[in-house]
Amino acid sequence: MLLALPDILPPAAAAKLRELVLAAQWVATGGNGAASRQLPHDALVTRTAQAEVTAALMDSAAFLSAALPHSVFPPVFARHREGGCSDGQVDRAIRCHKSTGARIRTDLSCTLFLTDPADYDGGELEIGGRFGKASYKLPAGHMLLYPSASLHRVAPVTRGERVSCFFWLQSLVADHSARELLYDLDQSVQELAAERGKNDDEVLRLTAIYHNLVRRWAEA
Amino acid sequence: MLLALPDILPPAAAAKLRELVLAAQWVATGGNGAASRQLPHDALVTRTAQAEVTAALMDSAAFLSAALPHSVFPPVFARHREGGCSDGQVDRAIRCHKSTGARIRTDLSCTLFLTDPADYDGGELEIGGRFGKASYKLPAGHMLLYPSASLHRVAPVTRGERVSCFFWLQSLVADHSARELLYDLDQSVQELAAERGKNDDEVLRLTAIYHNLVRRWAEA
Amino acid sequence: MLLALPDILPPAAAAKLRELVLAAQWVATGGNGAASRQLPHDALVTRTAQAEVTAALMDSAAFLSAALPHSVFPPVFARHREGGCSDGQVDRAIRCHKSTGARIRTDLSCTLFLTDPADYDGGELEIGGRFGKASYKLPAGHMLLYPSASLHRVAPVTRGERVSCFFWLQSLVADHSARELLYDLDQSVQELAAERGKNDDEVLRLTAIYHNLVRRWAEA
Amino acid sequence: MLLALPDILPPAAAAKLRELVLAAQWVATGGNGAASRQLPHDALVTRTAQAEVTAALMDSAAFLSAALPHSVFPPVFARHREGGCSDGQVDRAIRCHKSTGARIRTDLSCTLFLTDPADYDGGELEIGGRFGKASYKLPAGHMLLYPSASLHRVAPVTRGERVSCFFWLQSLVADHSARELLYDLDQSVQELAAERGKNDDEVLRLTAIYHNLVRRWAEA
Amino acid sequence: MLLALPDILPPAAAAKLRELVLAAQWVATGGNGAASRQLPHDALVTRTAQAEVTAALMDSAAFLSAALPHSVFPPVFARHREGGCSDGQVDRAIRCHKSTGARIRTDLSCTLFLTDPADYDGGELEIGGRFGKASYKLPAGHMLLYPSASLHRVAPVTRGERVSCFFWLQSLVADHSARELLYDLDQSVQELAAERGKNDDEVLRLTAIYHNLVRRWAEA
Amino acid sequence: MLLALPDILPPAAAAKLRELVLAAQWVATGGNGAASRQLPHDALVTRTAQAEVTAALMDSAAFLSAALPHSVFPPVFARHREGGCSDGQVDRAIRCHKSTGARIRTDLSCTLFLTDPADYDGGELEIGGRFGKASYKLPAGHMLLYPSASLHRVAPVTRGERVSCFFWLQSLVADHSARELLYDLDQSVQELAAERGKNDDEVLRLTAIYHNLVRRWAEA
Repeated sequence: MLLALPDILPPAAAAKLRELVLAAQWVATGGNGAASRQLPHDALVTRTAQAEVTAALMDSAAFLSAALPHSVFPPVFARHREGGCSDGQVDRAIRCHKSTGARIRTDLSCTLFLTDPADYDGGELEIGGRFGKASYKLPAGHMLLYPSASLHRVAPVTRGERVSCFFWLQSLVADHSARELLYDLDQSVQELAAERGKNDDEVLRLTAIYHNLVRRWAEA
Repeated sequence: MLLALPDILPPAAAAKLRELVLAAQWVATGGNGAASRQLPHDALVTRTAQAEVTAALMDSAAFLSAALPHSVFPPVFARHREGGCSDGQVDRAIRCHKSTGARIRTDLSCTLFLTDPADYDGGELEIGGRFGKASYKLPAGHMLLYPSASLHRVAPVTRGERVSCFFWLQSLVADHSARELLYDLDQSVQELAAERGKNDDEVLRLTAIYHNLVRRWAEA
Repeated sequence: MLLALPDILPPAAAAKLRELVLAAQWVATGGNGAASRQLPHDALVTRTAQAEVTAALMDSAAFLSAALPHSVFPPVFARHREGGCSDGQVDRAIRCHKSTGARIRTDLSCTLFLTDPADYDGGELEIGGRFGKASYKLPAGHMLLYPSASLHRVAPVTRGERVSCFFWLQSLVADHSARELLYDLDQSVQELAAERGKNDDEVLRLTAIYHNLVRRWAEA
Repeated sequence: MLLALPDILPPAAAAKLRELVLAAQWVATGGNGAASRQLPHDALVTRTAQAEVTAALMDSAAFLSAALPHSVFPPVFARHREGGCSDGQVDRAIRCHKSTGARIRTDLSCTLFLTDPADYDGGELEIGGRFGKASYKLPAGHMLLYPSASLHRVAPVTRGERVSCFFWLQSLVADHSARELLYDLDQSVQELAAERGKNDDEVLRLTAIYHNLVRRWAEA
Repeated sequence: MLLALPDILPPAAAAKLRELVLAAQWVATGGNGAASRQLPHDALVTRTAQAEVTAALMDSAAFLSAALPHSVFPPVFARHREGGCSDGQVDRAIRCHKSTGARIRTDLSCTLFLTDPADYDGGELEIGGRFGKASYKLPAGHMLLYPSASLHRVAPVTRGERVSCFFWLQSLVADHSARELLYDLDQSVQELAAERGKNDDEVLRLTAIYHNLVRRWAEA
Repeated sequence: MLLALPDILPPAAAAKLRELVLAAQWVATGGNGAASRQLPHDALVTRTAQAEVTAALMDSAAFLSAALPHSVFPPVFARHREGGCSDGQVDRAIRCHKSTGARIRTDLSCTLFLTDPADYDGGELEIGGRFGKASYKLPAGHMLLYPSASLHRVAPVTRGERVSCFFWLQSLVADHSARELLYDLDQSVQELAAERGKNDDEVLRLTAIYHNLVRRWAEA
């Protein structure tokens, strides 16, 4: 499950959110001096920005189908200037949120890009796995969904500034290949329903199969 | 797991509940015009009626043993007049309640009959599966428990009116054959305990086996 | 998984097989005196008849799709005259064959009917479950597939004679509801492939899903 | 998973807690007359004492690593005088708390000893299993962690008085041998990190393996 | 699953087998010089002795019920004189036999004692686990069954000589706590069947539960 | 699990094997005319070449650790000239071999390259997944291991000729992420054992963890 989801935020909304967070107070994070900063988790503006992202997620049929979200951890907003990067890491399996006390199993990691790729160099999201290392730099408003179990880091920014939002989520379906299979099956159901209607016999049978697989695999 | 549970409500209580809901405002549901109606999910009377049903469920040892309920979705009250029916369907795997926001995995579906079979024709609950199609029409106050994964529908009512209450539940034990096995084992434990006492060696051993199986299979 | 498979043997082949076995030596089985008899497991005619049944099974696409057989236990041939029946039972989980030493887990039980229903009264195959008790009496050459975990028995024959062949099998997919889901999905793939061709995008995607589910569930 | 955890409470804190609870009102529990008593679950002092124990648990790295607690049932305080004991039992799989309504699956049972072993005779915690029966009598402030699925009882006290605190917990990882394996792996990671530093390649790889195993087995 | 099985071989048979193997050629095993020796795996006498042990196992209802054997690795015969011992170890998960090429997953380890405890000092079988370390020294002809996943070793012999036979087996049921539960349930079924007969309703229901649990857990 | 394994065959052995098979009779495979051919599965030279490949696999510690092979399907030898390619496909989940009757679950697919990349253009092995499409063209004697569940094809050859050997295998551990985790853990154990010796406490503990994970996940 490594999936680029276009247009979680339309370009204008992404720009507006970027401006909102850029106007706030930021705090430095370990290691890179002022090159890497985050929004404080308990600031009012953080909560406003988080609400906007969460609402956009809940409106995205592609996100819901691909992630089957159980609980979404409050998003973190980060900015990286020249020299800013993040260490390679596998995310901790269980996370508790400082403010809310919420606890989740980190099945999936998400990075919502908020700066246009033309406005900075470097800063790719690098994800490693058995398939080698891949680099991602998506348009503002697009989001990458990837397994928290994979090694990932932000490559050093070498020009400009990269603003992004990242968060973890616990999925209703913990197993990645099961979740991918459900996503594929949902794609087939949507395609066939668009062609043949929702009450077509094959559409009904495949829909029942989809729900019975979710039932088998989901921890609600 | 397809089980008829007699006397979830004694006849008098079933009659009283039917009168309570019949006196309320109903809203039409899709497709059948006024032939099929439901109580609005946020009306006060709905909540009163739901509380009564839920309390009766929690008092029923047979229901608790057979369903091992984790979360019960707020019950829906329905009435079907001549021509009223419901479409055949496999229930969605995950449901969120409009008022409470509660989310459950629909493992089991339940229909509590509130009208005496003599008072209407048609209106059978039809359930399909690999074993063929079976039809159920239980006395008022009796309830049918069946897998949400099976195809089911209400056959058209051809005389009189059928009032019923239905709901979904998430079980502590998602797997139907595991839950059935626990139900059978509990029956044996109850029988043997009635004969030999709770402190009989075999009763103690089987009780420990029962709890260790629940421990193995339950998501609490 | 309770499924009637028509025409495992065409009527003429069923008749021929019945004649072949009826001409052989039979031995009484416990309890019913001469009313219930079986072919000896090590007679030559038994092996000939077994080979014929096994070959027919391997030719039946419906059987292969529904049962996903891993190992088929050598079939047993039985005849029941007036008064002959079999006790209700849940089949043992593990069986070893006297002659071959083969060991299987009995996931599915199969009864191949070899006598026309018009030629005997009684002798129904009765299968019990949570869905109640169902009775089956199929035409000669038809076969019933049912879970070995269900209670089943042959009702007493009250007129004529009933010849049948029964056996157990271990499936590649032990879980009944997983196997049923695969059977349903295979039906959809076959339907859509017939309509749209094997290289249609949706057919390819659903075929890949089918194989990846088998891969996930099968013990080869 | 049968593990003695030393110094959950340092000796002084254990003594202070014992004095706090001893000064309160106690109620007799079934069977042994006044020999076995408990603190009432809804008394103020009970809540104070519970909070102290819970805080100590959350401060113990060894407890967190060994138990991987999901939910801890409110602790019960018990005192046994001469003749006091508890019956052998396997704990119920699912428990609801009278005051809080919280429901947990009882994966692990914990006994925190609050009286020094020199101050009483008998009163051992006896735990049975396939490995035979073992007896435990730990210093005040030490705790024993053991599977709720095992048979256990308090042996009769023959001199003095034994004060203890016991509770159940649901673990993030239900399977005992999986949880034990994680505990062993965490021990290796801690040892190697102390020797080689947290950023050593092998430490990083084993840390990632640890978190990916938690991810695979945890219900958060 | 740590279980002593008495009388796998009656005393006379154990003595005869010990004499048979003592008369053969032995080879030294690593580390202890001549203090620890084994029978060569391909000698004729080894095969004779192995066949005798295997036959005794297949005759032992207690062994079959406790181990649910899938494949038994050819037994190894060992003798330890003064100073002879074996290193503590967790057995390899997968083993191939040099002569037969058979491959098994080592679920259970078995030690059949062939020398009377009075005839040697030391030489205990020590088994470690979360429950601490336990020592076993059984009469000749008795056998200990223990998880291959536990640490175990033979303590140094300090007087006389210890002859034993050990082997691994793959169980139909890999999970130890599942297998233990089946063993307990089988004990209850046997007890109740002896009291009430095999056709008693509760005996039949519990027998069906037993077989359906085996069906669920066994890889045949 | 997508892994390039260098030097399954050293360059000289790869060249010799290529010459051996090139000298044999080939048969065309569907669709590409003479551009794509295979060695007949029952020719003597095929069996010789298969034996050589299989022996090399069993000698490769990296292959054994990464694939944990249960059964290896007899390798197929293929040559693609200009225009030769193979269709994109997800491999069938279960395969039976025409000559040997062996049946396996296709967990992993393997391509052993036998022609030097300098000697042909095109002919890359293209593998698709959620991580996008990746292309592989390895030196002669190197092998790529990849999930049979992924879409893969040979890109058209545009110059020269590509000889390769491919086959499927069933792994002891069906789940890819479990198998990858075991491979990573084995790497750590090997590294640490090389540094600290096999009897170092941490090496022993991690080795035990490794074997207990294999025991948990392997179907032997």
